[in-house]
Amino acid sequence: MMTHVVKALLFDVQGTATDFLSTVCGEAQRISAGRYPDVDWPELVRHWRAGYFDALEAAGGDGWVSVHSVYRAALDTVLHEAGITGLSAAERAELTLAWQRLTPWPDVVPGLTRLKTKYTLATLSNADVSAVVNISKRAGLPWDAIFAAEMAGVFKPDPVIYRMAATYLGLDPPEIMMVASHKYDIRAAAGLGFRTAFVARPLEFGVDGAADVEYSEEFDFSASDFLDLADQLGC
Amino acid sequence: MMTHVVKALLFDVQGTATDFLSTVCGEAQRISAGRYPDVDWPELVRHWRAGYFDALEAAGGDGWVSVHSVYRAALDTVLHEAGITGLSAAERAELTLAWQRLTPWPDVVPGLTRLKTKYTLATLSNADVSAVVNISKRAGLPWDAIFAAEMAGVFKPDPVIYRMAATYLGLDPPEIMMVASHKYDIRAAAGLGFRTAFVARPLEFGVDGAADVEYSEEFDFSASDFLDLADQLGC
Repeated sequence: MMTHVVKALLFDVQGTATDFLSTVCGEAQRISAGRYPDVDWPELVRHWRAGYFDALEAAGGDGWVSVHSVYRAALDTVLHEAGITGLSAAERAELTLAWQRLTPWPDVVPGLTRLKTKYTLATLSNADVSAVVNISKRAGLPWDAIFAAEMAGVFKPDPVIYRMAATYLGLDPPEIMMVASHKYDIRAAAGLGFRTAFVARPLEFGVDGAADVEYSEEFDFSASDFLDLADQLGC
Repeated sequence: MMTHVVKALLFDVQGTATDFLSTVCGEAQRISAGRYPDVDWPELVRHWRAGYFDALEAAGGDGWVSVHSVYRAALDTVLHEAGITGLSAAERAELTLAWQRLTPWPDVVPGLTRLKTKYTLATLSNADVSAVVNISKRAGLPWDAIFAAEMAGVFKPDPVIYRMAATYLGLDPPEIMMVASHKYDIRAAAGLGFRTAFVARPLEFGVDGAADVEYSEEFDFSASDFLDLADQLGC
């Protein structure tokens, strides 16, 4: 019954819809071209992502900051910590652009294509609008709309960004389901009356990573991927 | 040479991409169900649209106002002027929703599909975000992103909205072309350094209307429809 009420699905992008670890590691290996055979690139990318989260938290409430610039600054720190001094400024800039070329998980395009027949699909991402547009166009992600933190001037999980998405969709929170692999994201949406779907992404941080994939009854749906979500929603 | 620089096209929606006169007249005739055989519906819709423009101009700089509410209020005025008193509140609400169901001109979907192979396509509309999303999903308009005045808090031709679109795209104005059938719109964009394409829509205001379809050398491109624009841009 409940699924009849939901009219739109909002999706997290970095991690939930895309495999940033593989994409960024691949770009790092391509750009470094074998110069650093002993570097644990997945571990470096995990640190890079953690540095991004720290910077976003530090920026909280302090006005907008471009996520591209956050990644670029955090990269210098993680390269320094890893003892990598030989990457030029141009190479660091190119590597940072990897976050605008994230590849989707294999289930994402077919899953979204099925979900789109029944629901309005939009992103709700902390990445810059341009990054979400570039990722989506490159990968053929069939969104009906792209919403991002940049449009709200604050980052998830600030309530302002979820309310902005509801206003833009012209819908009430119970008519919208937030879909993410990150519990802090869907918990914030649930607190405002949105429906929630948790999607497990066990490889979000790589085979050695520690992704939280535990299902919980606090969410309306828990799915193993977007195809499973489409099945559960009758699409 | 110039077309190699342009990376994104921004499109006006109401009038340029969609045939609001036919759509809204059709809905008016359906909802009024023959009760007003003497009413000149195209003329009424032209007045309705003019009332919308007047309200937007009056709202200028005074904060955001929902375009749906603008159309709803303007409808009462035009119905009163036309001596139509028998449409209920529910019928007026339903008729106002016609602006969220505008049908595209026949060239729009095939034209955008071709243009999308080479450019990032986004809307830049004064309509509410929800209206643009609803129109686009219903008609299958293949935008890469939806941008609207609601996101800027001001209406076209305020410079803020064009600059917002450039920021969201991560591009400079000369890398973006504004496409519209309304010269005030593309002139405003040109004044900020955007490229411009004028698309003639001779039937925008109906067969008895007075659409400005005169080509002018002040614009980078002038086209008879989106397919002609795709031809000229080599798509």
